[in-house]
Amino acid sequence: MSERIEIGEDMLADDRAQADAIRRRLREAGCVAVNLMSSPGAGKTSLLEKTAELAGGRWRLAAVQGDVATDLDARRLHRLGIPAVQVTTSAFGGECHLSAGMVARALDSLDLRAADLLFIENVGNLICPAAFDLGENARVVLLSVTEGEEKPLKYPAIFQGLAAALISKIDLLPHLPVSLARLRETVRAVAPGVEVIALSAMSGEGMDAWLAWLERLVARPRGGRA
Amino acid sequence: MSERIEIGEDMLADDRAQADAIRRRLREAGCVAVNLMSSPGAGKTSLLEKTAELAGGRWRLAAVQGDVATDLDARRLHRLGIPAVQVTTSAFGGECHLSAGMVARALDSLDLRAADLLFIENVGNLICPAAFDLGENARVVLLSVTEGEEKPLKYPAIFQGLAAALISKIDLLPHLPVSLARLRETVRAVAPGVEVIALSAMSGEGMDAWLAWLERLVARPRGGRA
Repeated sequence: MSERIEIGEDMLADDRAQADAIRRRLREAGCVAVNLMSSPGAGKTSLLEKTAELAGGRWRLAAVQGDVATDLDARRLHRLGIPAVQVTTSAFGGECHLSAGMVARALDSLDLRAADLLFIENVGNLICPAAFDLGENARVVLLSVTEGEEKPLKYPAIFQGLAAALISKIDLLPHLPVSLARLRETVRAVAPGVEVIALSAMSGEGMDAWLAWLERLVARPRGGRA
Repeated sequence: MSERIEIGEDMLADDRAQADAIRRRLREAGCVAVNLMSSPGAGKTSLLEKTAELAGGRWRLAAVQGDVATDLDARRLHRLGIPAVQVTTSAFGGECHLSAGMVARALDSLDLRAADLLFIENVGNLICPAAFDLGENARVVLLSVTEGEEKPLKYPAIFQGLAAALISKIDLLPHLPVSLARLRETVRAVAPGVEVIALSAMSGEGMDAWLAWLERLVARPRGGRA
């Protein structure tokens, strides 16, 4: 676990420099990157699959998939013809988040010039990824309705500096004691003004709003953070 | 985040000593402790509420509730008359797991002699809590069917040294592309021989097996780890 690694100010500064270098690589390649964060099983990979299906070639996609172990997620995207590199953090001592250094290394295996939109799927964890800039242009949190209404209040840090908050699996709402209105409220309590999109990769509901949001992100002048 | 804390061998040894001291306190008080770990929103507190309801005074319960922020969970148990202490790790720099030191401090506010069964509800995180011995007698992971079939393969460390794996929210199975048989398989792939109990705190299904498991745990000679 990460507690055994001593990271001083030098290493944090190095991390920031690596993140800035990634943003430069993305800008030069004309590619926009989204850092997608969530609890385990909130549906990050399913969202990417459905996004690819519905976007129908509108953008050239690529992905970096973070997990502690297995390359299951990258294989799911390969089946759709999306270039994807799996980063397994067990190679880094079982890290609980991606870091800019890991992403930089993964990008060496991807042709960024052949991509308009890069999804960086973080390790499933609602705490640790909050503190790490991966060189992305936009940070997005995916929160499943099955996690309940109060998770934003319990995990506030990951909702800071967000470009958008996605509420996933809304097809399950009829079977849960969860109010979508209350969940939107708790998101906005910790991330005032953030764009909140409720969707289901299963039913497709809300995917149009997500694709429209991506459209605006890709069309924006490049290089900064949303 | 934890990366900024330098923990050397001395501190890890100190952590182990604190965990052993907690086990001694528990044994002397005649109380058994369960370290309950899961992703955010897998239903740890709902399980404890339902356990208290169905146990109907069979055991005197107590709880230590870990969260990064808020005391929502402890308040839920107080409403049922269960002595519960909330540990908010934001006071420790936003830690992503409980530690023996935090639990020891929380136990100073609980009368262990007035409890037969102590639940230590860890911070919602399927990675970092794996590495920390809290002085518990039994480690239990709760995995929601909504998280999909493959999470055990992706987060193997937390399934090591388990006394039981609980599969929660099985009332949602009819609405999910998830096979309970496959989920049992992936649990057993990383934790061979572990007892797996599928249940729903909502419908009550499977709760009898969980209560029977707790009965055996409480009846056991005290002091060691399951």
